[in-house]
Order: sequence, then C-alpha cells, then structure tokens
Amino acid sequence: MHKTLIALAALTAATPALPQASAAIASGKAQPSPLAPSEIVAAAPKADWTAIAASDLLVMDLAPDAKGMSRRVVIQLMPEPFSQGWVGNIRKLAATRFWDGTAVNRVQDNYVVQWGDPNADDKAKAKKLPAGLETVPEDCYVNDYGGACDFDRRREGVAPKTKPKRTSLDIGPPPVPITPPPSWKITRDSYGAIPSFLYGWPIALGESERGTPQSWPVHCYGMVGVGRDLSPNTGSGAELYAVIGHAPRHLDRNIALVGRVIEGIEHLSSLPRGHGALGFYDLAQGDERTGIVSIRLGSEVADLPTYEYLSTESASFAKYADARANRRDAFFIRPAGGADICNIPVPVRRVT
Amino acid sequence: MHKTLIALAALTAATPALPQASAAIASGKAQPSPLAPSEIVAAAPKADWTAIAASDLLVMDLAPDAKGMSRRVVIQLMPEPFSQGWVGNIRKLAATRFWDGTAVNRVQDNYVVQWGDPNADDKAKAKKLPAGLETVPEDCYVNDYGGACDFDRRREGVAPKTKPKRTSLDIGPPPVPITPPPSWKITRDSYGAIPSFLYGWPIALGESERGTPQSWPVHCYGMVGVGRDLSPNTGSGAELYAVIGHAPRHLDRNIALVGRVIEGIEHLSSLPRGHGALGFYDLAQGDERTGIVSIRLGSEVADLPTYEYLSTESASFAKYADARANRRDAFFIRPAGGADICNIPVPVRRVT
Repeated sequence: MHKTLIALAALTAATPALPQASAAIASGKAQPSPLAPSEIVAAAPKADWTAIAASDLLVMDLAPDAKGMSRRVVIQLMPEPFSQGWVGNIRKLAATRFWDGTAVNRVQDNYVVQWGDPNADDKAKAKKLPAGLETVPEDCYVNDYGGACDFDRRREGVAPKTKPKRTSLDIGPPPVPITPPPSWKITRDSYGAIPSFLYGWPIALGESERGTPQSWPVHCYGMVGVGRDLSPNTGSGAELYAVIGHAPRHLDRNIALVGRVIEGIEHLSSLPRGHGALGFYDLAQGDERTGIVSIRLGSEVADLPTYEYLSTESASFAKYADARANRRDAFFIRPAGGADICNIPVPVRRVT
Repeated sequence: MHKTLIALAALTAATPALPQASAAIASGKAQPSPLAPSEIVAAAPKADWTAIAASDLLVMDLAPDAKGMSRRVVIQLMPEPFSQGWVGNIRKLAATRFWDGTAVNRVQDNYVVQWGDPNADDKAKAKKLPAGLETVPEDCYVNDYGGACDFDRRREGVAPKTKPKRTSLDIGPPPVPITPPPSWKITRDSYGAIPSFLYGWPIALGESERGTPQSWPVHCYGMVGVGRDLSPNTGSGAELYAVIGHAPRHLDRNIALVGRVIEGIEHLSSLPRGHGALGFYDLAQGDERTGIVSIRLGSEVADLPTYEYLSTESASFAKYADARANRRDAFFIRPAGGADICNIPVPVRRVT
C-alpha cells in the first residue's frame, strides 16, 4: 500500500514494464505493454534531442535553505520570434548583476512566485536599473507575422515592411499541432486557441481581434514572465515571476512570457506562501523573504551541465504527446483521448 | 515596481476599482469599471452561498512547522451521487482515528501530496484497517445514471433495477455548463468532456465507451483522491492524495475523487518535495516526513468555523465564471474568451 501509485508524472521515473491487463488478457495473446510517456522519452534517440546553448540559460542561485543546502534554479530563455525585447533586457540585467542581493518577494499559492528588487517602490532605496533597457510595446505579447510587433527592425529604426500575408503555420519549421491523432477530439482548446509546440515550447495559434493570424507562448506550469504595472506598461524584465499552479492562461497575450524553469522549480514552488495581498510577503506578519545570491547568464557560470530538450518536431515527441493524451500503460483503465497543452510538458534532461 | 501586479487569482484579495483603460477612454465616456471575479464574489448576496455541513468536512492537523506554527488542512467530502463508497470508508477511518500518527509520505512537484500509513507495505508494522470497509468497484469512478455503479443498492444486496434512459443532464438540479455565453468558443474541452459545475463541484459530462451518458468529478488543483494499486484495485481510502499542480486530468475516470481542500492547501503544497521515485520521501536521502497528528470529521472538531461555497447554480456564480473567462478588469488588455474548468475555482469562504 505504501507504494500505491497514482500514475506517473515525473518524466525521469520509469514505470516497471508490467503487462497491460485488458487487451493482452482479452485476446489471449501475449502483447508487449504499451510504453508509458516516460519510457518513450527514455528510448528517444540522441538525434531527437536538441541542446540548449548556455547563453540561453539564466541561472538563479537562492540563499541556502534552513539546512544549508544550495538552491539553484535554471531558466531557459524564450527563443525568437517571441518576446525578444524583454529577453534582451533580461540579458542586460543579468550581465550588470542587477539581481544580486534582491529577493523573492511574492509566493501566491496555485499561482506565481515573483522576484526582483524588494525596494523597487521606494525611490530612495531602489536599485538603479542599467542603462539601455528597451520599452517594449504591448503588440509584442504575440508574434503577428510581420505585423505591429516587428521588434528587431523597430529597434534599428527601420520601418516595418509590408510582407505578403502569411498563415499562422508559416513560421519556420511547421509547428506540431497536438491534435492530429484521430482519437483526439478537439482542435480548439478552452481558450479558443489551437495548441501546438514549436522549437520545444508550448505555443498557441489563433487570431487577433481583427482576424489576422497570431501565435503566442502559453502560461503553463514553470513558465517565466515579466511583472508589470497597468497598461500600457509592459514591464522591463527586472521583476520576474514563475507559474507554480494550474495554468493561468487568462494571462496569455496580456503579459510577456520570457522563459521557463527547466531545473529546480521545487526551490520556488515549495517556498512559504506570503501573507500579504496577492501573496506578497508581509514582514509585519512574520514573513521572511528568500534572498537571491545571484542571477547569471549560463555562459558566465562555471561547470554548468548541458541541457537538452526533446525536439517537438521529432517522431519521439509525437509519440510522447500521444501517450500523454492516451495513457495505455498498466495503471490506466480508461485513456482520456486528449490532453491540454500544459499537461504535455516538454521533456528536458541533463546530458550525462 | 514592488507591487507590480500580474493579475488576481486569490478570491479573497480585492483589486482597487481603477477605471478600465480601453473602452472608457476610447468612447470618451466615464464608465464603471467591470468587476473583477473577486469583486463579483464579494458582492454576492447571502442567498447565493450554501453552507457546508461540519459532518461533510475532514480536518487534518499536521505536526507544527519548524517555527511551531500549527498547520490545519480542511477538506470537504464529495457529495452524492459521486464516490460514496470511498467516502463512507473515509468516514469510518476518521471515526476510528486510523490516521492519527501517520504521515505525509509523498510530495511530487506539479502533481500530488499523498498521505497515509508509512508502514502500509510492511505487514509486521502496518496499522490495522478498521472492520467493515467496502471494496468499491471501478464502475464507481463515474456516475452513470442507474448503470453498473449503483453503489447503495449493491451494498444492500438489491440488484440494480433497469431505469428509463436518462440524459447526461438529468441529475438533480441542472448543471451549469460553463460554456453558454456566446463569447465562449467551445463546448467540449481538451479531454472531450463537457465541463460543468454541480452542487459546487467541477463535474465533467460525457459518454462511456459504449456511448451512454456519464458524469465524473474533475482532477483540479486541490482535489483529493484515493491512492490505489493496479487495476482492479480501487483503493480503500486509507491512502489519500491532494493535487498540487496543473490539473492531471488523465487521472479522471481512472481513480476515485472524494473531496477537495477548502482551507490550508498551502500547508501541503509548500512541503519539501520527496527525493525518491514519484516524489516519495526517501529517508536515506535525508527526507523527513511530515507527521499527521489527527484527522477528524468536522462534526468531532470543537470551534470549527462554518464554511460556505458560492452556489454554482446561482446568478453570482454565472457572473463570476464569465468574468474568469473574460477578464475585463483594469489589468487586462485582452480577455481570453474562455477558460478551462480548473481555472474557475469554486469560491469558498468562512462565515464571519
């Protein structure tokens, strides 16, 4: 009873290869057990994995825990064509050591952990932001295929060119919609979006309010975004948050997503919840902030392991996504026939 | 910057009534700000709230934390017609003090916290289960409208009667599908189910593999279920888990849901993650289990406050659900136009 399972979520934990009850016994034939998602990932060939450049990692070292154990959180930054204005700011903030000595200031259960300068509201005490941070427009919450947010050319002072109209699928390698297997039942999700994966990221495809194609990153567990004030403020990137609960997808297209935690999320998700409004720590109520020793770009960190993600354009990923949506391994008696995009986390591993 | 918002999730935290930027300014007229979901809940009349009987609560007191602070978790048990076999077992287990001195044995990030007898696998040390626990069949993971799981009559030795065929909506008060507003875009969710709310609970409507109507409770954040071994084992209820991550809906119809945490989930979700397989604590790796002092039915606990949920059949809930799906309060620039059922948590409050 102690080892009672309630199914596998950890990609790293393999299930024993038990015979599946229903099909094999009913037909009287010995059949191989269908693979669990974790087993498909473990069996994926090297060619199906893509290395993440150290320069695309952000390494956050929190103060040691009460037992003196170190706490490192590794974040992968969002690739083009998404959120590059904020990602550029974050690179500057890390390079200038802006976050060293700052803190985790907010932990709201089933929502977010947020960090940055705890004195940002107090002009006398606030840390100075580095020079040259961009003010990124709201249009850049989405990728609109040569539309209003054409950030790189805007930054260079070049007016956006009118491009031929492109479809929502016309962005580099074709996205892999997670809905093609005939056993799946929907093509739009509860948010009216077409869920897909692109370059290893959960990306929604849909339309602007004017009907033109857009794509945007999705607020799944572990995703990292940019805190902001009320519109039209979009945040500089100095204040960041990570999702530690059920996907808050009402934030999609309302706030910038700039990355995701690929290792050490438990150091954030298990922090004490704040007793102030919105889960901000309230020192008067006995809350204690967790200090941030440093945040560095991965390229500045010695002895950082190499990380890889399972290419979302690979055959292994398609099998994995299908297995997440149709669990046929021994524990399950009734496959769901579908899965929401945030219930198909992209596998990431250390290279050993 | 310190108070940078990233939108409201806590139902208890009110947002300031700031004017909404877009509509009001564009039209040049002063318009009242649309209410945030939390404001709709705060304004709901007393008649829209339903009291939860103390006898339907399970009160778990964990050992005090490192600072000596008490940790109480309050669970509401699932009402008829769902999972009543297991709920009956849980009432017996609480009444006989089975869980006193047991522990939290597993904390898997973005998945579940699980508790029960840590020695259940060791016959020499395992606690004795109380007499009279039911063995509940797998059919009872769903409510099938007089079909295979007609638990009460089965227990009484009465063969199920053939009933006239009923529709999936024919179960007491009509469920409130969360999809009726014309602005919402889907009627089936990513799991092929029709999301709805019934008696204050998130309930999916759909079909059996034979096409007959079924309904079943949904694995949202905070839901409590029964750990089990491989099929056909369904678990007794002695080993329970609570969801502390993105809704693991692949477990729906594969495992019994028996309740939900209505207060104190943070005492479970912020526990240290286990270093063993599946997040089980591994004492050899320095993990420390959290002790359970007692678990009691609410009717046995002195000075327990009264709790109420916002009736899911009320006009206030319909407004709240619509506002969760179409955020128009000041922070948001683009309402989503929909929400998944687990992103519309049913409001629960203490009566003051």
